[in-house]
Amino acid sequence: MGRSSDAREKILSAARSLIELRGYSALGVAEICKAAGVPKGSFYYFFESKEALALAVIDEHWAAQREGWTRVLNGDARPLERLRRLFEETETAQRVGQQSCGTVSGCMFGNLTLEMSNQTEAVRGRLQEIFESQVEMVDSVIAEAAERDEVTVTDTREAARSVVAQLEGQVLFAKLYNNASRLGAVWPNCMALLGARAPRAPVDA
Amino acid sequence: MGRSSDAREKILSAARSLIELRGYSALGVAEICKAAGVPKGSFYYFFESKEALALAVIDEHWAAQREGWTRVLNGDARPLERLRRLFEETETAQRVGQQSCGTVSGCMFGNLTLEMSNQTEAVRGRLQEIFESQVEMVDSVIAEAAERDEVTVTDTREAARSVVAQLEGQVLFAKLYNNASRLGAVWPNCMALLGARAPRAPVDA
Repeated sequence: MGRSSDAREKILSAARSLIELRGYSALGVAEICKAAGVPKGSFYYFFESKEALALAVIDEHWAAQREGWTRVLNGDARPLERLRRLFEETETAQRVGQQSCGTVSGCMFGNLTLEMSNQTEAVRGRLQEIFESQVEMVDSVIAEAAERDEVTVTDTREAARSVVAQLEGQVLFAKLYNNASRLGAVWPNCMALLGARAPRAPVDA
Repeated sequence: MGRSSDAREKILSAARSLIELRGYSALGVAEICKAAGVPKGSFYYFFESKEALALAVIDEHWAAQREGWTRVLNGDARPLERLRRLFEETETAQRVGQQSCGTVSGCMFGNLTLEMSNQTEAVRGRLQEIFESQVEMVDSVIAEAAERDEVTVTDTREAARSVVAQLEGQVLFAKLYNNASRLGAVWPNCMALLGARAPRAPVDA
């Protein structure tokens, strides 16, 4: 049993690396098993299909990313400062990935959206849920900033969508140019999209 | 000879449809030839490899898109109005595509960036050139608007990058949600990113 769950982890980990490197469509189950060092029979013991594996990879990646987003966005700093930290951590993560594998791998969810959402409805649905969660998390921070009168936008949900779209677009360019520094533009652009006011000096303390 | 060039067109057209539908990685030359209705021997007469075909598909698609962008962006309207029309035409094109094939196919260049730029350097280079051209075209319109004092941004090149990134991010969401109306947000977001001033009434005529 210990051995079995180990095989599942190995398959997940190999699939994640291969998807980041080469995308989903071109991958075969045999190749994934070879990279994972597990017999092909193990694959179908744990996963019904390649699509089921993709959903598991997506879920695992989102669980880890959501934890990071929650930590940063629910922090104690001023709301806009929390957003800034989120973008900084995203840039750092892309840079670390680049240093370990040579290329900026971009956003797994964006990559999969563009590669496969027109093919597998289950994956499309899952990716929609993840982006909705991201938008909701960013929305609640923007709403806090709006309550503090630090931004001028009124439709905070729509503003959150635009911020996440800007992030995805810049991550795409970071990947295309293999340059994580492209993400430095996200923060000033976010401020512009939110109609952010210059931070006011605290009235006494 | 007439027949040969006809075969080349058929291969290009089939490849373009298949790439839009299913991406590049999962496609095989045999499948492309079958969809094109040409013998496999013809393929290698016209294209050295699948990658060479991908570059031809990209070039053809960009030639058509650049023509549209040039027509709109070099028009007679006010600079910002020209940008607005560009976004409107993009939304219309995505909607027309959706009506004909059932799904919003997104931006071929963005799709290919996320799917394959880490695999084939020739394609990555070509996609970089195309996005540079797009940024340059948008930049020159923003620079015109800046001269007319209609926007507050000073680094017009950086602003153009942000506008194109916003467009790519929203096109990604249009594809994910299969909803071209998502692109309606691009215009107000562009105005925010550029720090656009409200249009001034003409002083007399």
